[in-house]
Amino acid sequence: MKNLKGLKVSLDQMPVIPGRPDLNAEYILRSINRAVKNKIDILVLPELAVSGYLISDLFEDESFVREVDRCNDIIIKAVPENLIVIFGTLASSSHYKNEDGRMRKSNCAVVAGNGLAQYFITKTLQPNYSIFDDDRHFYGTRKLAESSGFDAADYLKPLRIKTRIGSFSIGVILCEDMWHENYPCNPTEILVDKGAELIFNLSASPWSWHKNRKRHQIVRALLKKSPVPFIYVNNTGMQNNGKNIIVFDGSSTVYDGYGQIMLAVPPYYEGAYDFTFAKPTSDLVLPSDLPLLSLAEQIRRDADELYVGWEYGVRQAFNLLPPSARKAVIGLSGGIDSAVDAVLMAQILGPENVYAINMPSQYNSETTKNLAKQLADNLGVHYEVRPITKIVGAICEATGTKVDSLSYENVQARARQEILAARCQDLGAVFICNSNKIEMAFGYGTLYGDIAGFIAPLGDLLKYEVYQMADYLNRVVYQREVIPQECFKLAPSAELKNKQKDPFHYGNLERRGYHDELVRAFIEFRLNPEWVLEKYLNQTLEQEFGLEPGTLKKLFKTATDFTADLELNYRRLMNSYFKRIQCPPINKLSRRSFGYDLRESLLSPFFTSRYLNLKK
Amino acid sequence: MKNLKGLKVSLDQMPVIPGRPDLNAEYILRSINRAVKNKIDILVLPELAVSGYLISDLFEDESFVREVDRCNDIIIKAVPENLIVIFGTLASSSHYKNEDGRMRKSNCAVVAGNGLAQYFITKTLQPNYSIFDDDRHFYGTRKLAESSGFDAADYLKPLRIKTRIGSFSIGVILCEDMWHENYPCNPTEILVDKGAELIFNLSASPWSWHKNRKRHQIVRALLKKSPVPFIYVNNTGMQNNGKNIIVFDGSSTVYDGYGQIMLAVPPYYEGAYDFTFAKPTSDLVLPSDLPLLSLAEQIRRDADELYVGWEYGVRQAFNLLPPSARKAVIGLSGGIDSAVDAVLMAQILGPENVYAINMPSQYNSETTKNLAKQLADNLGVHYEVRPITKIVGAICEATGTKVDSLSYENVQARARQEILAARCQDLGAVFICNSNKIEMAFGYGTLYGDIAGFIAPLGDLLKYEVYQMADYLNRVVYQREVIPQECFKLAPSAELKNKQKDPFHYGNLERRGYHDELVRAFIEFRLNPEWVLEKYLNQTLEQEFGLEPGTLKKLFKTATDFTADLELNYRRLMNSYFKRIQCPPINKLSRRSFGYDLRESLLSPFFTSRYLNLKK
Repeated sequence: MKNLKGLKVSLDQMPVIPGRPDLNAEYILRSINRAVKNKIDILVLPELAVSGYLISDLFEDESFVREVDRCNDIIIKAVPENLIVIFGTLASSSHYKNEDGRMRKSNCAVVAGNGLAQYFITKTLQPNYSIFDDDRHFYGTRKLAESSGFDAADYLKPLRIKTRIGSFSIGVILCEDMWHENYPCNPTEILVDKGAELIFNLSASPWSWHKNRKRHQIVRALLKKSPVPFIYVNNTGMQNNGKNIIVFDGSSTVYDGYGQIMLAVPPYYEGAYDFTFAKPTSDLVLPSDLPLLSLAEQIRRDADELYVGWEYGVRQAFNLLPPSARKAVIGLSGGIDSAVDAVLMAQILGPENVYAINMPSQYNSETTKNLAKQLADNLGVHYEVRPITKIVGAICEATGTKVDSLSYENVQARARQEILAARCQDLGAVFICNSNKIEMAFGYGTLYGDIAGFIAPLGDLLKYEVYQMADYLNRVVYQREVIPQECFKLAPSAELKNKQKDPFHYGNLERRGYHDELVRAFIEFRLNPEWVLEKYLNQTLEQEFGLEPGTLKKLFKTATDFTADLELNYRRLMNSYFKRIQCPPINKLSRRSFGYDLRESLLSPFFTSRYLNLKK
Repeated sequence: MKNLKGLKVSLDQMPVIPGRPDLNAEYILRSINRAVKNKIDILVLPELAVSGYLISDLFEDESFVREVDRCNDIIIKAVPENLIVIFGTLASSSHYKNEDGRMRKSNCAVVAGNGLAQYFITKTLQPNYSIFDDDRHFYGTRKLAESSGFDAADYLKPLRIKTRIGSFSIGVILCEDMWHENYPCNPTEILVDKGAELIFNLSASPWSWHKNRKRHQIVRALLKKSPVPFIYVNNTGMQNNGKNIIVFDGSSTVYDGYGQIMLAVPPYYEGAYDFTFAKPTSDLVLPSDLPLLSLAEQIRRDADELYVGWEYGVRQAFNLLPPSARKAVIGLSGGIDSAVDAVLMAQILGPENVYAINMPSQYNSETTKNLAKQLADNLGVHYEVRPITKIVGAICEATGTKVDSLSYENVQARARQEILAARCQDLGAVFICNSNKIEMAFGYGTLYGDIAGFIAPLGDLLKYEVYQMADYLNRVVYQREVIPQECFKLAPSAELKNKQKDPFHYGNLERRGYHDELVRAFIEFRLNPEWVLEKYLNQTLEQEFGLEPGTLKKLFKTATDFTADLELNYRRLMNSYFKRIQCPPINKLSRRSFGYDLRESLLSPFFTSRYLNLKK
């Protein structure tokens, strides 16, 4: 292994601003100046640091692409002697076309400085799943190779660089190139086989729960075959695709040749971290080396990671707004969902910028009204009580809608939206959608009513996780009981008619409920009712779902009750997509969130023949 | 060229039902029976005829995929002697993984019958633009070739088949395989070079305006190099991706070896058409051979094609609903947009299923109120007048919103939505969003107000095209003046305050307006303000936009006025995406529609340095 002692590398977890090459180039120029001052040998910036990654079809705008080219040139020219800058950007070609007939663009790494005028390296493995559409936008190494009759491997070559500590060979790869498991080639291995002594991975890798654990495992497995130091640089900031708010956690890492972590830059740290090789190894170690954690400790750490990613995403979403508009109006019912959203808003925007509105009708209990008031007082947010009765009355009068009809329930939900929307506009604020993932999944909500707003912060949280976040906010963030204990105990209800209760077996603070698990199975694990029924019939469903033994028996007296509920909810899931088409943006937290992450079509619910056989 | 005299081919423009392999397999079995009765040699069905094409991430559901496999088997087993069936379907492999780590699936053609037990041919060229995400779902020939060290061409082989008229070789390709222009290989050419004497193209090719003209050109160019007969089979029906309603027009075609059309199946014909080789050539000829049309005639034919695609899509969207819910509630203002929607609805659903509601406030003129009434009478639809005054009053009272504020305008728009939504639910109907493409582009509308509803039929029509459709409905469909002439002359207004007029230079029945053209430039041609300003400065913009000479001078006194309007509207376009995120589904009509066809991120509006220089 090459002795890199004394090599100074700067890992810049740049908070990339999507669609703003001007601002991003300015940032990179500042970062270069800083690197010069700190006598850095190699400055590394993330993937697509100039254009941003999630800019959707703005990649098709040739003027925009040429502007990125101009910025690339400015950056390359600004690299002084004795510094090497590696940054991710878009490179375009006016000679060749993309497969869509447009200008050809590639997702590239540029290596500039110290004798290397500039060197463009295209991405080899391009993801096309979840929120990713790389093949839509970028012409990668594999296509370059195919169109010229070569192998992708022929395009993967280490680069010889000169630094203060001597010359050596580096391999530069981009993001997915390291997540090679299901692809026909492994760029890291190829580069090391060809002599690379240090690997750089430039990423724009969205955070999702537990992703980093998986990454450490992947790197360690990679380096077992190809033992060279590995430097991973990921951006921070938030980007979006309209339907989803996506956070990038940075969490850049320097691994030694065995995959041990030598530097772990703190997640969400928006800036550069310098690292000098052969300093004492940091005391951070791989998660797999950690002593086994107790379940309670594991849950605590999970909540920690979830909270930080969640809060960062929602905070950044508000940064899309001009500073004067960073104010939130929120309907506060006294239930746990709106309580959690209100506390989060107060935390992000400051209580002075949060307007909690309780909007009672004849169906709201004194209990919930008091809880709403108590919460608002605890937080110190503005609190208004605005009954919906007269609006509901006026709508019913204008339309002939009858009291206590289903229609009447929706009229109430929409009347609340009217209040939130009007208050918003008068205050120059936005309002919050309190729907959680279970409600989104099964369409339990009113379009243009409670399914409305600037953002749905709970839209990717199961009920169990809503409670987790409630508890975390009380325990860790506020360190006092801002959310009253009673909110945790209340049976969830929409309070749109008398004695209404939500028709789900929800999770609580301790564990997920049956319908939480059903949503996970359908959405995160992409399972079919066929799978659920099979596990139920061979009596392993409680185990698969991690439910308390006896739960299913308590919920469903007979197998017929079970299948009736399963079919009802699968139909609800499929049919309610018409609501999700028009729902607010959701910040992605789980491995699969509604929106652009899970793409849906309006389809008629269909049960497989195997399901129907099992049912018999 | 092989003498195929006497060969009987059936082209089945199957109305594929996405996500319903059970129903699709039943259809195919019926089609096989019909082919046997008609003594057909080769029955051809479209691409992905068993699963459907636009089913989004349902492709990830392994139980669903296995169900498709089961249906494939049933179909293959049902093929009798003396018949060859070629159909498009999904094929899966449990041995190999896709690049996303899931079960590997391919978009395939199956050739079954007459000694060929079954033969799976994977798609070679996979589109990843517009509404298409092929690489997300399917493992194509190019990846198969790459992962096994071959060329895609090695996988492309003609198939020898036996029929009543003798043995010969066929080449089977799928959809994009013929649109090879920007790809590194040309499957048709390869197959003909290897001996194919007849090419079949199985397509799931969405209709968009003028697409078929382009197709005839492509086929003719293809066959110049590779002169063999070419049979194109495309499905009918509607599929969707939630944000867009997509129609498939069929328009299946048999071309002779020179690209002359021997059979053109009528567009949207939902069924099989038989063709026997060496019958006298049909009298249909290639559009390029048509005598030059007058501009007026061209516009008339365009309107014809547009109307048929538009009406079919909206009609099919209603077929997503149970028959009892195929009723529409529509806000009828007296303006041209709602007039066109109302007439379309009456045409599709029958006047007895249309509820037109005029919802006046103090700002609505007697003129528009009378026009609304007159239109409803002309159509014979239900007509209700429901003033919004009291609802608006109740909302203002509950929220403190002031009369004549901007907020007050939005309260009015939302109050109308309240009436539509409540009436809908009481009637078991859906309501219609009347926003057109200009309004969608510039965010000229109120979220949860006029931007709301089951579908936005005008969402991909420029104002010029709205007038075109109005005229077409009067002139061709109804053959009387259902839409009063005054509606054509009225200056468009939202009527949310006194003397309000829409801030756009709209098109009229004769030609597109400046802002119509601006939307086309930004959306359909993906141009940047930089391009617009450049053309303005070198005085070619009127020509590029096809505007009447002098239009720009009339609209903008100075260059400063011009850039101010340009920047304002580009900002509006970028900023108003937050409304489009939550807007109703739009049926795709143009080459690029808002929704899943044009993917957007919420980004801050950005002007390139070249734009800023030009401005100076």
